[in-house]
Amino acid sequence: MMQLPDSIDITEVCPRDGFQNHKPLINPETKKEIIDDLCKLGFTRMEITSFVSPKAIPQMSDAGEVVRFFNSRWAEQIEGISLIPNLKGAELALKAGAKSLIMVVSASEKHNMANTGRTVADSLAELAEISRIKGDADLNIGIGTSFICPFAGEIAVSDVLEIVRASLNLGISNITIADTTGTANPLKVHDSLSSIKKEFSCSGFSLHFHDTYGFGLANVLTALQLGYASFESSAAGMGGCPFAPGATGNLATEDLVNMAAGMGIKTGINLPDLLEVSRRITKRLNLSLVSHSASTQLGL
Amino acid sequence: MMQLPDSIDITEVCPRDGFQNHKPLINPETKKEIIDDLCKLGFTRMEITSFVSPKAIPQMSDAGEVVRFFNSRWAEQIEGISLIPNLKGAELALKAGAKSLIMVVSASEKHNMANTGRTVADSLAELAEISRIKGDADLNIGIGTSFICPFAGEIAVSDVLEIVRASLNLGISNITIADTTGTANPLKVHDSLSSIKKEFSCSGFSLHFHDTYGFGLANVLTALQLGYASFESSAAGMGGCPFAPGATGNLATEDLVNMAAGMGIKTGINLPDLLEVSRRITKRLNLSLVSHSASTQLGL
Repeated sequence: MMQLPDSIDITEVCPRDGFQNHKPLINPETKKEIIDDLCKLGFTRMEITSFVSPKAIPQMSDAGEVVRFFNSRWAEQIEGISLIPNLKGAELALKAGAKSLIMVVSASEKHNMANTGRTVADSLAELAEISRIKGDADLNIGIGTSFICPFAGEIAVSDVLEIVRASLNLGISNITIADTTGTANPLKVHDSLSSIKKEFSCSGFSLHFHDTYGFGLANVLTALQLGYASFESSAAGMGGCPFAPGATGNLATEDLVNMAAGMGIKTGINLPDLLEVSRRITKRLNLSLVSHSASTQLGL
Repeated sequence: MMQLPDSIDITEVCPRDGFQNHKPLINPETKKEIIDDLCKLGFTRMEITSFVSPKAIPQMSDAGEVVRFFNSRWAEQIEGISLIPNLKGAELALKAGAKSLIMVVSASEKHNMANTGRTVADSLAELAEISRIKGDADLNIGIGTSFICPFAGEIAVSDVLEIVRASLNLGISNITIADTTGTANPLKVHDSLSSIKKEFSCSGFSLHFHDTYGFGLANVLTALQLGYASFESSAAGMGGCPFAPGATGNLATEDLVNMAAGMGIKTGINLPDLLEVSRRITKRLNLSLVSHSASTQLGL
């Protein structure tokens, strides 16, 4: 008998991770329509924007406006999460009224330096400072390159565990383990997640997988079999740095929901409704990128 | 510890399953160039053509020529398999000099009727007749719709087991279990393959999965964990009835080889060489369809 959880939670990341590297700039009104569409599907958590340098990521320069919009309509039912790379981002997010933050720190020293210009220790020091100034806001952490780093190769799980311990010591109990480049295979995922489970149990951990190399659902399956029951994914498979036009990056939410539904695992998300929302996203943004499920429309 | 085999065998099906529904017609000389390219990669088994009605599948009307070409160059090292839907196809294949046949029978009565115009019992009776007339040729069986049928829904594993027993009684020891439409999820695959393993062990069974819904490698992983070590896949992900242009159908050989290599499982196939062959296939045939690994070129 295959051991699987009865239900999983999905954090929808399309409005942040999906939009982040999209070109051209998406009109804030279009973003709001898409966020509305996604919120109506019943997600309980959503990454809605990020407070990063508008020079580095112009697509997110409307972060404040998005947060204010979200707060006015959805913040009661849904945890709307703003990504922050550092203390300055946290200050901007809190000033804009963000009620939930996720700080990203890479398990790979080299990747963290390339991504944020800081050592892991410096990022964790900023995380501690953020936890002091955050007030009532929720604080989450996302651990990037948790399995493989494009610069440093395979990541020792001990590097991930150190960041997990530091986060728990700060009272941060929602931790995302991310395969930033989609290169993690099920064996590596199994080994790392087994170690994490052994020390901390599966509770409080979300998994963020990419489908860049087609490993997305195989890695999800590996996590499910270990008892992990919280995942991040992106409607229409948007984002996640696909290397080529038409290539996949982030794991598509509809592919995750479709596989879960087929295996009798509850997600709280209605698949045909989600497919319709993904269809509208691709139409609005004129995307050639499509998820497996959206491109086949499940034969609907 | 994740239990995985040390090595797997891959049957390359691009020249048959990949080409089958491709339009326009592929020049026989182009097919020969592609077969040459694939054979040089080191596959030990390959589906090279099918002896079906040229009216139904015009792309395979050069089956005799392809078999003769293959026999003249590769038959010593590689099992070159011709697909046959019935006795008539077998007679034509044998007459053309085919040294290995695979007869397809669907586990779903409805699908077998739609696909071959015969009941499963009638197909098995023809299989028995083929086993009598085949002479020195090898005879394999492929069991279509082994998990889910587009007409009949979920397939009871008992229907698959009956065909397996009938095949073994005829001395047919190479049996492909196929997810014809790509709708089988890992739980269903696990349940069915567990039952097959329980009665017959994993030896002699190949798995044929599609990536239509992104489940391809998750299903491979499920089979690997049960001890199955033989798979069919198609270079460049060609074929397998994708529903939409750009959508994936057959599991791409490079995605399978890439995942296996990442997990330390030997395939005997060099991934960069395979990617180059797949690149040349897509270029020759002007395909927009690309596998995950080919579209990202593994960052090469």
